[in-house]
Parts: sequence; C-alpha cells; structure tokens
Amino acid sequence: MRLKGFQKLTSIDDALQKFFAVLEIKRLKTATVSLDSVLNRVLAENVVAEVDVPRFDRSAVDGYAVEAEETVGATQFKPKIFLLTDKNRIAAKEAKQVWTGNQLPEGANAVVMLENTKLVKGKIHVWSQVTPGENVSRKGEDIQKGDVAAQAGTRLKPQHLGLIAALGIDKVKVFDKPKIAVLTTGDELVELGNKLKEGQIFDINKLVLCALCRDIGGEPLDLGIAEDDVDEISERLRIGLGQSDVMITSGGTSVGGSDLVPDAVNRIGKPGVIVHGIAMRPAMPTALAVANGKPILILPGNPVAAIIGFEVFARPLICRFLGMKRVEPRLSVQAKMTRGITTSLGRRNFVRVRVFRQNGELLAEPISARGSSMISTMTKANGYVIVPENREGLEEKESVSVQLFDIVEG
Amino acid sequence: MRLKGFQKLTSIDDALQKFFAVLEIKRLKTATVSLDSVLNRVLAENVVAEVDVPRFDRSAVDGYAVEAEETVGATQFKPKIFLLTDKNRIAAKEAKQVWTGNQLPEGANAVVMLENTKLVKGKIHVWSQVTPGENVSRKGEDIQKGDVAAQAGTRLKPQHLGLIAALGIDKVKVFDKPKIAVLTTGDELVELGNKLKEGQIFDINKLVLCALCRDIGGEPLDLGIAEDDVDEISERLRIGLGQSDVMITSGGTSVGGSDLVPDAVNRIGKPGVIVHGIAMRPAMPTALAVANGKPILILPGNPVAAIIGFEVFARPLICRFLGMKRVEPRLSVQAKMTRGITTSLGRRNFVRVRVFRQNGELLAEPISARGSSMISTMTKANGYVIVPENREGLEEKESVSVQLFDIVEG
Repeated sequence: MRLKGFQKLTSIDDALQKFFAVLEIKRLKTATVSLDSVLNRVLAENVVAEVDVPRFDRSAVDGYAVEAEETVGATQFKPKIFLLTDKNRIAAKEAKQVWTGNQLPEGANAVVMLENTKLVKGKIHVWSQVTPGENVSRKGEDIQKGDVAAQAGTRLKPQHLGLIAALGIDKVKVFDKPKIAVLTTGDELVELGNKLKEGQIFDINKLVLCALCRDIGGEPLDLGIAEDDVDEISERLRIGLGQSDVMITSGGTSVGGSDLVPDAVNRIGKPGVIVHGIAMRPAMPTALAVANGKPILILPGNPVAAIIGFEVFARPLICRFLGMKRVEPRLSVQAKMTRGITTSLGRRNFVRVRVFRQNGELLAEPISARGSSMISTMTKANGYVIVPENREGLEEKESVSVQLFDIVEG
Repeated sequence: MRLKGFQKLTSIDDALQKFFAVLEIKRLKTATVSLDSVLNRVLAENVVAEVDVPRFDRSAVDGYAVEAEETVGATQFKPKIFLLTDKNRIAAKEAKQVWTGNQLPEGANAVVMLENTKLVKGKIHVWSQVTPGENVSRKGEDIQKGDVAAQAGTRLKPQHLGLIAALGIDKVKVFDKPKIAVLTTGDELVELGNKLKEGQIFDINKLVLCALCRDIGGEPLDLGIAEDDVDEISERLRIGLGQSDVMITSGGTSVGGSDLVPDAVNRIGKPGVIVHGIAMRPAMPTALAVANGKPILILPGNPVAAIIGFEVFARPLICRFLGMKRVEPRLSVQAKMTRGITTSLGRRNFVRVRVFRQNGELLAEPISARGSSMISTMTKANGYVIVPENREGLEEKESVSVQLFDIVEG
C-alpha cells in the first residue's frame, strides 16, 4: 500500500526555479483600450510623453503676471506701479491679471499674488518683489517631453490614468487578461446549486480559485468538476489547455493514495510534472507541471491549501504573464504575535493570523485550525505569516511581517 | 476685490461631522446575485449558516476509521487487530478504510493514520492508540448551523465566497453599486480625444475621479465638463442629482475669485453648502453640500487636491452608502522619513511619499512638489503621510504611518 508521503520534498524556491527554468512564458496578446476602461489592467508598453505638461508656463496662484525684474525693491511703503493690460504679451511695467492655471502672457516670468497688490486708480501697486519663476508652474515641470510617464508592466491605478490623460493620450496598449482554466476533481464534489447526497460536499475551490484569478487580473474559465478518473481528468485537461494560457487544478494529488491529476498530466503532454511535493504547509502535495508548452498548477483539494498554493505559485506565474518586472507584492505590516505557535521544521509554514490594532499597536492573533480544510479560518484571518524552513515556530510577542489579504479593522 | 481665502477654515473632523449631521444616507437598493459574480461587492444582509460545515464527521487523514476505545493500549509490539469492513456502520473491532475528507462510518469516532497500521492477512494491525475525535473533522467544526458566516457590510473577497459556497448558498443579497455623478468645470478644460487650443488643457480629473469611484465599488456617471457659468453648472447638477446617489464636482471653487459651483449648488436645492474651506492641504477650497437630500462633494480643480479630497470625503461617504460599519481603511505601513519636511500649522497636511525597502527597513521619501497641480507626484508616490494640524512638519528619520495607494516595490 502506497503511503501518503513523498520520498523527498522540494523547497518552494527550488520548485519555482525548476518550474520557470522549463516553462517558456509566451507573451500575451495586447489590445489598445480606451483610458476609461483600463483601470487595473497592465500596460504592455511604455507610455512616453510626446508633449510637455504643463504645455505652457502657467500661473500657480491668483495674481498678476509681471516681469520679475521690474519688482525689485518693491515694499508696502514703496510699491512698484504697473499698467494693467489684457494682451497676451506684456511690455516692461505692464501686468496682466491671471488666475491659477492661466497661461502666462509672453514677456512675463513671475506672478505676484493678489494679496500683495492693490488696484489704485486703474494701476496695480505691487508691494513685494518676486524672483523669476516665482508662482509659475513651468512648462514641462510635471512631465517633460520624452519622459517615460508609465512603464510597461505597470498596473494602471487611477493616478496613472490621470498622468497619461494629461499627455492627451486617450488609448493605451494593455496585455490581454491571461486565460486561466480552473478544474476541480473529486467524486465527492457537487456543483453549487445542486442537491447533496450522503457523503457529498459542495465544490468551493473552483469558485475561490476563479475569484483569485479575477482579482489579480486574469480571466478564469470554468472547466467543471472531474470525477476521480485519470481518463476523464486527462480529457478535461486537454480541453483546458487548448483554451487557456494557464491551467489550475484542485484535488487529485496525493489523495487516497493516488496521484490522479499528476498521472493525467503526464499522459497528455511533455515534459509533464516538474516538481511534486513541496516543503511547505499547507499545500505540501502541490505539483507544478508543463505540458505542450503550457503551465499547469496542480493544487491540493483542501480549500486553505488551494488558496495558499495559488498565492505561492499562481501569483508569480500570472505576474510573469502580465509582463511585470517582479511579483506584485501583497501589502505587509509588522505586527506582534499575541501568542506563540509551533510549526514544522523543514517546511515553509503559512500561518493564518488576524491582525488588529490595540492601543495603537498592531497585534497578530494566530487562527487555530487543525488542518487546512477549514475555509472559515481564511475569513477569520486577514493575513498570514511566513515561518521559514529553519524555524520551529513563532514566539509570543515576536514581531512578524504579515502578508495581508483583507483589511485591518480599527 | 475678493481675495482668495476664507474667513475661517473648518477642520476635517468638524466638516465631516457637520456634513453627516445634515445628510440622511438613503439605503441603497439591493440585488440577489449569483456567487460567481459578487467578488468585491458588499453584502446587504448577514449570511447565516442553515447547515453545519462539515455536514458530517469526516476523516482528516488517510487511514482507518475505528472506535477509539478499541485502540487503547495498542503499540507496535502489541498491535490491536481489526476486521476490515466496507459497510457504512462499523461494529466493535471493525475498521473501515477512509481517505481524507471521507465521511466517517457510523460507530466510528476516530481515524488511525495509514502510517500506524499494517494490513496482515486481510486484517488491520493498529500500532498506536487514538483518542475519540482524533484525526476527525467534526460536523460543524468549520461553521456551525446558526452561525453568521459573513456579516452585512462585508466586502466579499474570494475566501468569503468559499465560505458561503460551503453552506450550499449560491446567491447572496448585495447592495447596488452607488451611482456617482462626476462633473468637472472650467473654461480651459477639453475632453480627452479632442484638439487643444492655445491656453487649454485636457480634463484629467473626471477620468481619475471616475476610476476612484469604480475602485471602491461605485458606478460612475460622466456628466461632462461645464463651462465657468453658474447657469450651466446648475443645470448639469440638476441632471446629475436626478440620476445619482452622490455628486462629485471638480473645480469652480475659490477659482479666479469666485465660487461658481458652491453658488450653483445653493441655487438648486436646500440646505446647499454646509461647509466651505477646510483646514487641510491640499484641497483647502473643498466644500461639502447637500441638496434635495443628496450629497454633493465640491472638490478643487487641482488634480492632486481632487484625489486627496476624494480620499478624505468621498471614501467615507461611499462606505456609508455601502452599509459598512466603518470606513474601509487603506493599508498602512510604518516607515522612516528619509528627510524632514515642513508643513502648514493649523492644517492637516497630506504629504505624498514613496515608500521603499532598503536593508530590510521601510523608508518614506517625500515627493517634492510646489503645488497640487502636478499629477506626476501621485505616480511617483505610493502613499501619503497625514501630518496633524498641531505639527509644523516631520523630522528626518521620524517613524510615520503611510497610507498606501499603490504597491511597495522590493
């Protein structure tokens, strides 16, 4: 009888290295999309400024545009006096009224703030001297012609859209969303919306994995539930590979003493399974495979393990597909453990914690759970702590870095 | 001549309090939506478990289900011997093989791990004793019937979907996305995609504000650009109020010595402007108004000021509409200032910083900018530091809390 267990576990770092050494990431197709529809999409090429922003010297305040040199020596007792003009060009001793954002008239190189002037019998009395450039937003001050306004691989946030729009650009080239086929396996699983029979449970991993894909900018493709049968799994994998950039499966690895999904993967294409059995907890039975040039992530069926497996293996993979320079990091915070915990030496442990604020201090409360089957631990937690392979646990009051996957209240 | 400036600035806290004291938040309509389409939507009612999860006692390991009492005293030298059965009910001295996740047969209350057994001539030799409940995921261990699985006001993350699905629930009631009408004002503004004439600039705030609305779960409605004309602004506001839950405007407040938008708001409905002029930097000319029972946020035209104004006033407003118990906080990190800066006493300053990691330490580099017109400062920065009203700056090496609006590299 084959016992559950692997001859040798591979470290996460080695697993990723072996996987990416074999896998050739195919560049995703790109699309040119209107700026009002690209929020959170990823730029496929640098956006280069073809103009200066601002396009012209602008007033940064409400006041009078003047030639700075003419204000030298001005004080409240000895104001300098300017003739008011409406023209787009001022001569010496002329001033033009400008509001914040207005283009400076030719000949002007500074703006005197309204507060430092007085209109006396149609003439402007200026009380305080200004230096050249004072209260002026210079042409090109915000972005200079030729500057890279946004780099390829940038996930476009609202502020990036603003910067690109300022250049007068209304469409950008973004990567297509990577298509990610998601398959769950297991005789006991039933699609949500149906009736359960004795001993059956609802499949939740497909829904969760599809949502995780969407959240990071992928387009999930639901491949359904396969029975615990290598033929059926192979067939669905073949369909999935034909329609997607990445395949993710859940279950059927080191379950009931057999490795249905790894076996099926090895059957459908070369080189097949690259790594199987990772020195981590949860998600130890994860396997990484490549078939017909496409990556297949074989995640365990336990819901928490599937999520952590996605986190560790799918996120870097999808970020690479999206042309990002590095894995988009989760936000992390330093927090103090409310109590000690023990972890398995030789494995990288992902410990779920709930971070909360108490007396201005961030605390991390470990969420106890016996196994990785309890999905409720992932909603009670808002982050996880990575305990490295050479540690046997964390100590009470130890300061840890928490990777957040939900908000911190308070 | 009216100088730019307010007789009295209102603190942010007072402004929010006055605003929410006048505004009656109307509950948004709700919709019952399939679980695969509700990612990041906000729950409108508690999800209560009507079943236990797991629904039955399950094995947490691969092994043999037994009656724990029958294993007492078992050792490698004196194993306890069980008869193998396939039935869904075991008798004393019977064992049934189970894989992780399998339902326990009736009569069994523990599982012996495969590793601690041996199959000898059709009988199972058990080497180690188990206690009742050992290696069993008990019925209701994950969620108990009657428990609140997810609370109204929760933004649904992938893990929440998983938890709800585990209950067999495939649809949930979520709030409709609040409709937010966005109007920009300014004679100098041109819609993206058109040609600029001398002195004109592209409107970027509408795009940015719409994206910010989308990011937080709102449905933006583009009301276009209004010229600097109280009649035109009033007309567009009337249209916007008729179609939206919230109105946001940009520009036309304390510009060129006039307050076109506040004046227009006061014309179209009661009570009109509640607060105008906030003790903050940037976004000082912000006004908060209510007309015909609907909130109107009047933000300045400077792009950075508009974004900070959105952050400070629109986020709490939208979170209230979405029935959240508190404002969904931005993620924040502690970082050390790379250099000191000066800020304005008596105002709450929002200082843009770029947080980066250096030698394992988080540092916050202030992004210098003379005004709030430079949108590039918002893409160079990945967060901001709030400097309170009673401070005149931040010191070099001071530890500050940074509110992040983009990722921290490295």
